Amino acid sequence: MKLEGQQVLMRIFIGESDRWKMKPLHEALVEMFRLEGFAGVTVLKGIMGFGCHSVTHTDKLLRFSADLPIIVEVVDSEEKIQAIMPRIDAMMDGGMITMESAHVIRYRKDDTSCCDK
Amino acid sequence: MKLEGQQVLMRIFIGESDRWKMKPLHEALVEMFRLEGFAGVTVLKGIMGFGCHSVTHTDKLLRFSADLPIIVEVVDSEEKIQAIMPRIDAMMDGGMITMESAHVIRYRKDDTSCCDK
Amino acid sequence: MKLEGQQVLMRIFIGESDRWKMKPLHEALVEMFRLEGFAGVTVLKGIMGFGCHSVTHTDKLLRFSADLPIIVEVVDSEEKIQAIMPRIDAMMDGGMITMESAHVIRYRKDDTSCCDK
Repeated sequence: MKLEGQQVLMRIFIGESDRWKMKPLHEALVEMFRLEGFAGVTVLKGIMGFGCHSVTHTDKLLRFSADLPIIVEVVDSEEKIQAIMPRIDAMMDGGMITMESAHVIRYRKDDTSCCDK
Repeated sequence: MKLEGQQVLMRIFIGESDRWKMKPLHEALVEMFRLEGFAGVTVLKGIMGFGCHSVTHTDKLLRFSADLPIIVEVVDSEEKIQAIMPRIDAMMDGGMITMESAHVIRYRKDDTSCCDK
Repeated sequence: MKLEGQQVLMRIFIGESDRWKMKPLHEALVEMFRLEGFAGVTVLKGIMGFGCHSVTHTDKLLRFSADLPIIVEVVDSEEKIQAIMPRIDAMMDGGMITMESAHVIRYRKDDTSCCDK
């Protein structure tokens, strides 16, 4: 089964060392999106980068660096993403978020409602 | 040499354990895009995420997890992508695809036609 | 503190083995963006892919492959990105760049001007 429509691709750019209440921020974000019933989240880890403070991180120079770039990607309805923004704002201390409109196709193994957006 | 134009960025979100005819789905997709003469494909692997069935995958809790998120990215003409969609639909069993229009610049080492789109 | 606006997401698709003056191209690009005062750069490394010359790279078949796909992501104002394009063109020998307009939110720990765009 196939569901199609226009949704919002939100990409949250943070660092691997960012924390939220003792927990890695990207893990706290994934947990929140899951509990709020978002259809899916993907977390990507970069090999190098720099952010607001212009420190270049790399897994080559700093093999055990705790601050490689992390991107948390979420795709859902504009309503759902706007509704969760205040909670994300409260968790962000530095970093960046980009939002784009995208044509989205969701495939479902069966008629469970998990992707029923 | 430089080729410029508006094309479609297609991102296919699947799991590392998804299969197509015994083969990892992302490898089957890359092979199909290559055989069909697409200009390029990039496969990214996430470190954590969840999809339709709300199971959180992570390479920390499950070091040998066979289901980390995978994103297969393809950029090509809208015609070419629309033409291949029925074959992609047939291979997808769960997962998600996003499509966005993007301004694309292709650089060519020489006048071979490989990127001649 | 929160800064919001429309900016350009530039994604530079190259190979891990691409070089610029003896140095890995992605490292040369990150260094240039940092020296030019861009707000942030993220470098992602793919696990598989192919580009202009249709050679499929994979970290499974070629564990020590020196040519896995690399994506260098930059988000900044259209003016700043247009101004740097001639220098990027000079560094690219093959590869691809995509540009999209995105709604961007930047979070600042304090009133430093590092993200003051």
